[in-house]
Amino acid sequence: MAKEITSRSENYSQWYIDLVRKAGLADYTEVKGCMVIKPYGFGIWEKMQRVLDDKFKETGHVNAYFPLFIPKSFFSKEAAHVDGFAKECAVVTHYRLRNDGTGGIEVDPEAKLEEELIVRPTSETIIWNTYRDWIKSYRDLPLLINQWANVVRWEMRTRLFLRTTEFLWQEGHTAHATREEAVEEAEKMLEVYADFAENVMAVPVVKGIKSANERFAGALETYCIEALMQDGKALQAGTSHFLGQNFAKAFDVKYTNKEGKEEFVWATSWGVSTRLMGALIMTHSDDEGLVLPPRLAPLQVVMVPIYKSEEQMEEVRAYLQPTIDGLKKRGISVKFDDRDTHRPGWKFAEYEMTGVPVRIACGGKDKENQQIEIARRDTKEKMQWSIDGAVDAIENLLEEIQQNLFQRALNFRTENTREANSWDEFVALLKEKGGFISAHWDGTPETEQKIKELTKATIRCIPLDQKKETGNCILTGNPSEGRVLFALAY
Amino acid sequence: MAKEITSRSENYSQWYIDLVRKAGLADYTEVKGCMVIKPYGFGIWEKMQRVLDDKFKETGHVNAYFPLFIPKSFFSKEAAHVDGFAKECAVVTHYRLRNDGTGGIEVDPEAKLEEELIVRPTSETIIWNTYRDWIKSYRDLPLLINQWANVVRWEMRTRLFLRTTEFLWQEGHTAHATREEAVEEAEKMLEVYADFAENVMAVPVVKGIKSANERFAGALETYCIEALMQDGKALQAGTSHFLGQNFAKAFDVKYTNKEGKEEFVWATSWGVSTRLMGALIMTHSDDEGLVLPPRLAPLQVVMVPIYKSEEQMEEVRAYLQPTIDGLKKRGISVKFDDRDTHRPGWKFAEYEMTGVPVRIACGGKDKENQQIEIARRDTKEKMQWSIDGAVDAIENLLEEIQQNLFQRALNFRTENTREANSWDEFVALLKEKGGFISAHWDGTPETEQKIKELTKATIRCIPLDQKKETGNCILTGNPSEGRVLFALAY
Repeated sequence: MAKEITSRSENYSQWYIDLVRKAGLADYTEVKGCMVIKPYGFGIWEKMQRVLDDKFKETGHVNAYFPLFIPKSFFSKEAAHVDGFAKECAVVTHYRLRNDGTGGIEVDPEAKLEEELIVRPTSETIIWNTYRDWIKSYRDLPLLINQWANVVRWEMRTRLFLRTTEFLWQEGHTAHATREEAVEEAEKMLEVYADFAENVMAVPVVKGIKSANERFAGALETYCIEALMQDGKALQAGTSHFLGQNFAKAFDVKYTNKEGKEEFVWATSWGVSTRLMGALIMTHSDDEGLVLPPRLAPLQVVMVPIYKSEEQMEEVRAYLQPTIDGLKKRGISVKFDDRDTHRPGWKFAEYEMTGVPVRIACGGKDKENQQIEIARRDTKEKMQWSIDGAVDAIENLLEEIQQNLFQRALNFRTENTREANSWDEFVALLKEKGGFISAHWDGTPETEQKIKELTKATIRCIPLDQKKETGNCILTGNPSEGRVLFALAY
Repeated sequence: MAKEITSRSENYSQWYIDLVRKAGLADYTEVKGCMVIKPYGFGIWEKMQRVLDDKFKETGHVNAYFPLFIPKSFFSKEAAHVDGFAKECAVVTHYRLRNDGTGGIEVDPEAKLEEELIVRPTSETIIWNTYRDWIKSYRDLPLLINQWANVVRWEMRTRLFLRTTEFLWQEGHTAHATREEAVEEAEKMLEVYADFAENVMAVPVVKGIKSANERFAGALETYCIEALMQDGKALQAGTSHFLGQNFAKAFDVKYTNKEGKEEFVWATSWGVSTRLMGALIMTHSDDEGLVLPPRLAPLQVVMVPIYKSEEQMEEVRAYLQPTIDGLKKRGISVKFDDRDTHRPGWKFAEYEMTGVPVRIACGGKDKENQQIEIARRDTKEKMQWSIDGAVDAIENLLEEIQQNLFQRALNFRTENTREANSWDEFVALLKEKGGFISAHWDGTPETEQKIKELTKATIRCIPLDQKKETGNCILTGNPSEGRVLFALAY
């Protein structure tokens, strides 16, 4: 495999795009801003989906499916929401094509819709319009529903997985009898996301609350998890919103409580998307290609036989077969790569590019010595191991790689989270180091906006574990009650 | 549960709609022609997806995801395809909304797309446009890809699950080096569908080939599975297409063969959709509600305690607990319904409406006698069983219900498949009996078209197991080499 990619130090952005394409994860298409998720990339996304879906169900949620199209007028019903979402949207205006008389086709002007339909950028409006019929009594609550779907937000500047016009996601939409219950749900789902990011994706995240400027359009509170990429930029990896009664009021969703009184319903929504793929790639990968945590690797162990004749290859296969069977029995995915179209060196490079966590090379000499050669993708370390007990050792190694990736990313984040105590220090850190900058802020949207205009940095979150510490805003010098996390962000 | 539905004999169509809504499967929305798939209905669809997806993977396929939008010009590239699909489509013409100055929003006329985008009605064009970059050499073949997606075909008359503007489906799109391999693939996937319909859905199907009139737009051959509903109308439950080199030629997809020569690639596509939900419902259900084969039932066994006090209820629970644990251990889904908001009779009706295969009622007296009362949803039979060995017996009963549903549907189809040997007989059968009518046809599209105009009946398929039998066309009297299956169809 002679597929070289740009190095990170040379051009981080280009490194990312090269990697996504050459590892077979995704690619651009002729449809502006829309990507194709290729089989290998989709295989990783499917693993993410399966784990998340199981967690949603464990926490009492069920899946459903709501329409792709939303009548234009629905967006105007919630005042804040319309400003946030009804802007860069795909608009369906016609429902028929006709032959244009020259072998092509054209839009049939007769088939104009009375009211335009918007391809959903998010589904609060259509879902709350439906919930009105579903919720009558306190017995119908809580309603805990999730949807896996495609959504469209028209983007001018796109980047594979990170920002595309169409993307895939899940969106949870829940309805509750009380404010407390809704807040508890929003916080619970934030925990589900944080646990998934850290224990499955091996991506450390800061849990926090968004400032008013960065809040979801229509929410009273937006919780988020924020991760730090290798270039020192932050990436929002998931959000969970406490929506108060805003959507219930906009769509007139009331329930009769136990005392027979009508009340508006309380809401949450929460989502993660194929953007997580970007976070996964940018957290762990290196100049040789993708690095995957074993829990999300479609292929966890690959075996490359070294041989000169077909007979030798079969000897190696027979030698490794008990190990293969043993790994499979434990649910570990393993492939014996017997393709004779490529040399071992080419295969090694291919499995480095695609991030297979453990690679085993094995030839006649290894068999004689009752050994195998193990290569770890994360550290690129090579080891000679006895074939005896290899199954146990490989299983432990996969776990060790999982932990190592998390620890490595956590160390990186720790090293790249710094305090700034003056404006000059803040600007210098942003320019020279990047990363998370923990600084005092006076709590006003105006100051946050000014900081953004001056530096492009935004408040990524007010950390949930923020310690009370009085200080002075780095820009205005006004009093502050605690530090918040700033960063340049994707 | 006081939810009555129209009986089948009174109004079959209304019975279906009532059932779909009252069993919590799906409902209409304010978006014309689009449905919401409710959690219970989606739970069944998820089970279908899981089984099918596993089968696709067992047969070597991988999943990927292609764009929702297709540039209008792509449709004109394959001549037959444009006539079949580029007609009743949702057309995106703009990409931005703006405030209209009166609190509402309007389409921004400045944001008009240069080329309109079509919301995919099927994805052959965008996929083959992508395959051009993926396929270079015989080493890249076969390419065996499937996509789970939503598609849109603008429909004027809709019916939940059976015909909706937006629906969910999977579409397989494969590329092969030779004609033989592609034909083999199309036939293999037909077998996968037929096996799924019969052994999982318990819906007997006829495997066959479509006549030219009913063939997929752009295919050389369309294979199908056809099922018979309780009202004597046929329903196409899945199709698999041999596309020849049509799309490869339209999108210039060539590969270099082992001899270094460039050739066009051979293609198939195949799909099943949420329409299967309609087939499932209409094949088995009755006037009390849904009847589900155990292999697709989200809940397979429900236990309803009969009690007067909380204490009695807990006694019943303790009595049933070993049975509950035993069933769960075997992977059987079971619920102990301890809701005190509803009486047992209400619960019985609810579980009949939602088609839970096995219902167990149990009170203090049953405990004294070391018994439980079992009710089968399929036959409505009630039985007193000993609690000893109940786990084995219930597991066997679920299997028996699965088989019984299939056999019952097969008997119905056998009774409702008749031969017609003259035009008068054909017309009389259609009018008085419905069902499948096996008759001779002269093989011409014109005759098929005329029969359709005269009777609304179409050729559902030329069965794969058609026996050679010469005869005369029921309409024209011209020679025929075998019988084909006619029916009125959904």
